[in-house]
Amino acid sequence: MTSPHTSVALVQMRCGGSTQRNIDSAVERIAAAATQGADVVCLQELFASTYPCQEEDIRRFDDAEPIPGPTSQRIAEAAREHEVVVVGSFFERRAKGLYHNTAVVFERDGSCLGMYRKMHIPDDPNYYEKFYFAPGDLGFRSFQTSAGCIGVCICWDQWFPEAARLTALQGADIIFYPSAIGWSPQEKQEFGETQWSAWETVMRGHAIANGVYVAAVNRVGVEQQIEFWGASFVADPNGQITGRAAHDQEQTLIIPCDFKQVDVVRTHWPFLRDRRIDAYGQLSQRFIDPTADATDARK
Amino acid sequence: MTSPHTSVALVQMRCGGSTQRNIDSAVERIAAAATQGADVVCLQELFASTYPCQEEDIRRFDDAEPIPGPTSQRIAEAAREHEVVVVGSFFERRAKGLYHNTAVVFERDGSCLGMYRKMHIPDDPNYYEKFYFAPGDLGFRSFQTSAGCIGVCICWDQWFPEAARLTALQGADIIFYPSAIGWSPQEKQEFGETQWSAWETVMRGHAIANGVYVAAVNRVGVEQQIEFWGASFVADPNGQITGRAAHDQEQTLIIPCDFKQVDVVRTHWPFLRDRRIDAYGQLSQRFIDPTADATDARK
Repeated sequence: MTSPHTSVALVQMRCGGSTQRNIDSAVERIAAAATQGADVVCLQELFASTYPCQEEDIRRFDDAEPIPGPTSQRIAEAAREHEVVVVGSFFERRAKGLYHNTAVVFERDGSCLGMYRKMHIPDDPNYYEKFYFAPGDLGFRSFQTSAGCIGVCICWDQWFPEAARLTALQGADIIFYPSAIGWSPQEKQEFGETQWSAWETVMRGHAIANGVYVAAVNRVGVEQQIEFWGASFVADPNGQITGRAAHDQEQTLIIPCDFKQVDVVRTHWPFLRDRRIDAYGQLSQRFIDPTADATDARK
Repeated sequence: MTSPHTSVALVQMRCGGSTQRNIDSAVERIAAAATQGADVVCLQELFASTYPCQEEDIRRFDDAEPIPGPTSQRIAEAAREHEVVVVGSFFERRAKGLYHNTAVVFERDGSCLGMYRKMHIPDDPNYYEKFYFAPGDLGFRSFQTSAGCIGVCICWDQWFPEAARLTALQGADIIFYPSAIGWSPQEKQEFGETQWSAWETVMRGHAIANGVYVAAVNRVGVEQQIEFWGASFVADPNGQITGRAAHDQEQTLIIPCDFKQVDVVRTHWPFLRDRRIDAYGQLSQRFIDPTADATDARK
C-alpha cells in the first residue's frame, strides 16, 4: 500500500574550502536520506562551496560549471543510485562571462526534469550577488515529479510573494527554497532574532496565502562575515511549522508531507477562487505614482 | 516639537442588535482615543451592526446606506469634532439593488478623503458575502492624510498578497484591515488556534514583504454561529507584533508607529528595488496551464 505521505528531506550543511568534500558530503546525505525513506531531497543553495558572494572577487567565477557539468552529473547520479528526487543548486556557467544561480530538479532515474534560474538577485553588504549572477530568464516554475509537483525558488526569492504565487499557480504542492542566509556578527545581538523571525514568517505567509507546503533549506556555520543561521524548516499549507532544524548544526530534516492537504486547505480557504485577476495589472509596475493617485482619491 | 510617532487606535467592539447603540459606542470610542492622543482611529468592519452575512437574508439590505449617508456623516462629524483621522467601514447602498462593503477615510476636518470598496469578496458557510456585496471597482488604494499615507483593505483582502502589495506600491505607510472574522464553535477546539495563527501570520508576512505597518481591527463577541476572535493587532515593518488586543474583550488598542521605519526597513531589505516587474504578468491568470508548463520544463 502506498503511503499517503511524501517524505521530504532538507539537507542543512556546513561548507568548507574543499569543493570535493562539500560534494561528497551532499552525496552521502542524499544516500542517508533515501535510506530513511525520503522521496525528495533538497540541498541548500550553492552547496558545493562556501558562499561565493561575500566580496566581488573575479576568481570565484572559477567555481561555476555548465549544466550539465561535473557537479550536476554527480548529483544526478546520486538521484539515480538512490532512486530519489533531488533538488540541487549550482553556480551555473551558461556562456563565456554569463552566470546564473540555478536549481535543477532530478528525477529518481537521474534524468533532469528542468531547471530554475534565480529570478530575484540580492545585492547587499556580504551578499554581492548582482556581481555574479545574471537575473533568471526562465520565469517561475513547477516540475511534475514522481514524488509530486515541486516548485523551486532560491533564497532572496523567498521575500517576494509574487514568486511564491506564480510558482503555486503552476500546480506546486511544495515550494523549496534552497538558501544561504545568516547573521552579521555585529548585528546578531540587536537584530538577529527579528531578522530570522521575519525570514521564517514571510515564508509561512506564502504557505498560507497559496495553500502549499513550503520548505526552506539553509546552510550553517561561520564563513567570513556571515554566521549562517540554519533553521531549515517545513511549513504546512496552514503555515504551521512541522519541522525545524537547529541554528548551528548540520542536520538532515526528514518531514512527512501529505500533499492531499493542499486540496483540503484550499477548498476550506478558497483564495485561488477569489483572486481579483482583473485588478492585478499594476503589479508589473515598480511603484504607482502617488500624485496621480492622490488626485484621484480626492474626487 | 512634533512627536516622531503616529498614534494609531484600533477600536475592537462587540456589536448588538441596536444600530444606534453600536454607532454611539463607536463615536464614544473615537472620542476617547482622540483624548488619549490618537492621530488615526480605525473602526472594525461593518461596525454599525451585527455581522449581516451569516445567512442570505434580503432584509439585511435595509442596513445599507448611501455614502455619504447618516452613519458615514456621524463618523465624519466625530472625526471633525475630535480632530482625528478616522477609517470607517460601511454597508454601502450605491444604487437600487447595488451594494458594496466600503471603507471611507475621513480627515481631521471631517472631509472625506476617499473610499475603498472591498475587492475580494468571500463566500463560505456563515460568511455569505457574495450575496450582499458587489466586488469593489475602485482598485486598491492609499490615501494621503495629515497623519501619514494610509492604505485600507477589508477583511478577506488580508489573505491576498496582491492586495497588500498594490496598496503599498501607492505609498502606504500602514495598511488597515477592518475585519469580522471568528471561530465556528464546533471547529474552535480542533482548528481554532491554527486558524487564528494563520490570519495573523499572513498579515505579518504582508508587513515584512512590503516593509509597511499593518493594523487589523476585528470585532469580538458571539453572534449566531460565529465567535469573533478579536485579537486586533499592529505589526511593524519587520513583522513584529507591537500590540495585540484580547480575544474576548472590547478594547481600543492605541499603538505608536514610527513611519520613518518604513524607509529604514525598506532600505535595509530593498525588496521593492529587486521586484522582477518584467516577469509578473501571469499574476493576472487564474491558474497556469500545468500541461503546457510540464512539456516546457522537460525540454
